[in-house]
Amino acid sequence: MEDVVIRAIDPLPALRNPILVEGLPGVGNVGKLAADYLKDQLGAKPLATIYSRFFPPQVYVSEEGIIRMVSNDLHFYQPTGAKARDVLILGGDYQGISPEGQYEITHRVLEFCQSLGVREIVTLAGFAQGHVVEEPRVLGAATSQDRVESMKKFGVVFSRNDPGGGLIGASGLFLGIGRLFGMEGVCLMGETSGYFVDPRSAQAVLKVLVQVLNVKVDFTDLESKAQEIDRIAQRIHDVEQHAAGEPAGAGGSGRARDDLGYIG
Amino acid sequence: MEDVVIRAIDPLPALRNPILVEGLPGVGNVGKLAADYLKDQLGAKPLATIYSRFFPPQVYVSEEGIIRMVSNDLHFYQPTGAKARDVLILGGDYQGISPEGQYEITHRVLEFCQSLGVREIVTLAGFAQGHVVEEPRVLGAATSQDRVESMKKFGVVFSRNDPGGGLIGASGLFLGIGRLFGMEGVCLMGETSGYFVDPRSAQAVLKVLVQVLNVKVDFTDLESKAQEIDRIAQRIHDVEQHAAGEPAGAGGSGRARDDLGYIG
Amino acid sequence: MEDVVIRAIDPLPALRNPILVEGLPGVGNVGKLAADYLKDQLGAKPLATIYSRFFPPQVYVSEEGIIRMVSNDLHFYQPTGAKARDVLILGGDYQGISPEGQYEITHRVLEFCQSLGVREIVTLAGFAQGHVVEEPRVLGAATSQDRVESMKKFGVVFSRNDPGGGLIGASGLFLGIGRLFGMEGVCLMGETSGYFVDPRSAQAVLKVLVQVLNVKVDFTDLESKAQEIDRIAQRIHDVEQHAAGEPAGAGGSGRARDDLGYIG
Amino acid sequence: MEDVVIRAIDPLPALRNPILVEGLPGVGNVGKLAADYLKDQLGAKPLATIYSRFFPPQVYVSEEGIIRMVSNDLHFYQPTGAKARDVLILGGDYQGISPEGQYEITHRVLEFCQSLGVREIVTLAGFAQGHVVEEPRVLGAATSQDRVESMKKFGVVFSRNDPGGGLIGASGLFLGIGRLFGMEGVCLMGETSGYFVDPRSAQAVLKVLVQVLNVKVDFTDLESKAQEIDRIAQRIHDVEQHAAGEPAGAGGSGRARDDLGYIG
Repeated sequence: MEDVVIRAIDPLPALRNPILVEGLPGVGNVGKLAADYLKDQLGAKPLATIYSRFFPPQVYVSEEGIIRMVSNDLHFYQPTGAKARDVLILGGDYQGISPEGQYEITHRVLEFCQSLGVREIVTLAGFAQGHVVEEPRVLGAATSQDRVESMKKFGVVFSRNDPGGGLIGASGLFLGIGRLFGMEGVCLMGETSGYFVDPRSAQAVLKVLVQVLNVKVDFTDLESKAQEIDRIAQRIHDVEQHAAGEPAGAGGSGRARDDLGYIG
Repeated sequence: MEDVVIRAIDPLPALRNPILVEGLPGVGNVGKLAADYLKDQLGAKPLATIYSRFFPPQVYVSEEGIIRMVSNDLHFYQPTGAKARDVLILGGDYQGISPEGQYEITHRVLEFCQSLGVREIVTLAGFAQGHVVEEPRVLGAATSQDRVESMKKFGVVFSRNDPGGGLIGASGLFLGIGRLFGMEGVCLMGETSGYFVDPRSAQAVLKVLVQVLNVKVDFTDLESKAQEIDRIAQRIHDVEQHAAGEPAGAGGSGRARDDLGYIG
Repeated sequence: MEDVVIRAIDPLPALRNPILVEGLPGVGNVGKLAADYLKDQLGAKPLATIYSRFFPPQVYVSEEGIIRMVSNDLHFYQPTGAKARDVLILGGDYQGISPEGQYEITHRVLEFCQSLGVREIVTLAGFAQGHVVEEPRVLGAATSQDRVESMKKFGVVFSRNDPGGGLIGASGLFLGIGRLFGMEGVCLMGETSGYFVDPRSAQAVLKVLVQVLNVKVDFTDLESKAQEIDRIAQRIHDVEQHAAGEPAGAGGSGRARDDLGYIG
Repeated sequence: MEDVVIRAIDPLPALRNPILVEGLPGVGNVGKLAADYLKDQLGAKPLATIYSRFFPPQVYVSEEGIIRMVSNDLHFYQPTGAKARDVLILGGDYQGISPEGQYEITHRVLEFCQSLGVREIVTLAGFAQGHVVEEPRVLGAATSQDRVESMKKFGVVFSRNDPGGGLIGASGLFLGIGRLFGMEGVCLMGETSGYFVDPRSAQAVLKVLVQVLNVKVDFTDLESKAQEIDRIAQRIHDVEQHAAGEPAGAGGSGRARDDLGYIG
């Protein structure tokens, strides 16, 4: 078996200066939430499915009883307009489960994307702050000073100290290996506690991304998800406060949500 | 050394529209028990032995002192009758011991089976319920809606929620990778506690399988094994009840067997 | 880098019906002790050095400060006499440190040995009994009934139950993969506690092996080593007895040595 | 993706009898500190960047927000003078993170270095003594007796017992695999506690190395770093003594620094 198997639609579409958006599972699932939401909102169409022996040996079963093997997937969106550029969106169930797997899958997907004309990448990720973040900023990293400057215009924060230890996993590797393919790109990292799935952070990331891509997205559903998570978090907090002998919510909403950092 | 080494009989038999039955060690050893029993009952003949560096580096020693290396094995059965189809049965000592190994072995075995004309697969497995199951149902998953419907006719249950997390290991992967080879198939999962080897669950699975394959099997020996396990389980239960200061069996047979869920 | 690198003397010697003796580190170091002792006693000459990325990334430094990389090594012995057969001895620092590594190294070494004309293998190992064994028996396993019978003549014990779980590691794998090369062979396992290095068990194995090979070996040095280990074991035992408030040696020599089973 | 990807400047420089100096992260970071300092002091120029799937799947982000992928790097220095020989310096972020990775990266880098004309290697490392070493000696290991003797002239200590267990990792492997390429070399090991980064040990190693290479280096900055580490260590020690109810520094400077061995 090849390390990475790519099954694409035939014939492949002719893409106009396509930009690759990567959003795989990771911290707070921020990247995956954002990429999946974008895909759904744009009505992006399936382009390729990616299987690998570096994924877990697992199949999923749908409610109807139909199996599908663990995969990553590429969808594509072709906006109208003479000057518009096409968008490729990479999502999926897992990142590669070993360091070698991470490198192999990233390299093979980029090789395929290069054959489709991709020269630019935006990777999406969460950045774990270890405490609840009321209004998540979007931190950035990029392959060149040019990209840094252009992202600053969209409100992306380039911090001298964050991320101090660098980026681990697909969001960093797509940019790093992308450079070996002569591609340029940026990583958009939504601040998040790191303790739970975070649609609010995904929303912050996506609000930058739509500007980069020059596309329109309705954020209503994502906002609903964010409020749902807020409610769950508040409920857990109330229960914990109650258990600790304090009247529920007594600490005030602000403090209460800070304490959410303790949720496992 | 090749990742997977297949040593087949020479010449290979000409098979009539063969269907592959997979039953390797796993939860409750349900799949392996069912496949091995089917092989013995049908008097299936050896077709190929499969070695791999993804198996443990181990040999077994027979009572006579003869060694054989850890392997998987294919047997074949050719029923009489103009319209009958042949059956291939895959069993063995181990599944691949790493994720990569699982993918490689499955892929290589399917490649070989494809060369034998296989286009359809039935995989056998146990489904761990975490408690003793008096009358195990057979749950299903399939590669297509057609297969789902045809299995329902044999009493297979397609549950909206089970298996929630998908299938991990060979039984899922043979279907998943099988699709890459254009094969269709189903997975039959016998409910089991997950705490001990379960011939009763294997029997439930096999009773569906003989209908799918349109073959006849005498279940006497498998029923004996199931009753033996029942007796062992009852004895353990009695000892535990006794140790806990209750009269043995006082809880009634039904409750007693439920408690078996605690047996390691 | 190739998985396994073999550096042999040039030109290779022409060997007469050579038999391969394998003795790598393992339980009680019995196999390695026996193979190394045989090599030294026969004055076997270096034939090849085997390096592999499946060994630890390590070099040893001699007392003079000279490094050498972790390896396995083949030596050869050519007895005089018209009917004599040559002996190849495989020893070394490590077995492969992963299952794949075990398979790859064994396969590659056997491939090389086949090119030298090897068709027969004797592997040497320890068999852990979990308690001190005063007079270690030599247990056997073989590739054919013929070999079983011929080994019985040398006093090798073929037990219905031992080794119940099979053989794990090089001693089993050389026979198992050897069969894929059409080679036949036996494994000689010296009983040992499994708790310490055991020259006495190595001696028992070697006393069978010299009959198989029809060579002569002076056992004086190996017996000295065995007595040294006996003395160390006795001393540890005395200290422990003393610490436990019993007069040293009070339990009698027999019981005292039985307790050695507890030495880590 | 290739196991190891080397991106070199084009065209490659013509090197005069180049000697390779290896200093990757390891015990006390001694080797890396020494190699990096040498590179900076000599003003060595970039020659190649080495990426590998055996490194962690990680990118670093600079203070300006620019990413770069984890790598090793070769720099070269060409001294003036008719008889001078050129120097290649290998440094980097990580050693390979698996045994196979260690072998593959070392092999591939040496293959590349051979193509540049390298026939001699000096590897730099720390040697953990488990206690603070006031005046670190430089221990040696070499590929030949000739090298041992020539290093003794520079004050390198070849100890009968150290390093007893051999060398694990790149510093040993570059010499071991180097021999397979017909290269000769030495390993210089600075004594260090093993508990913290040790510029003083790096300085000791470098003072030998500059003699081997016949280059000049200003040690002022490295001495500053060493004194800074001394101050930090002293401060930690004082705090600990104080916490233990003793007057700070009462134990005297010598004893105080010995206790530093406990710093994690």
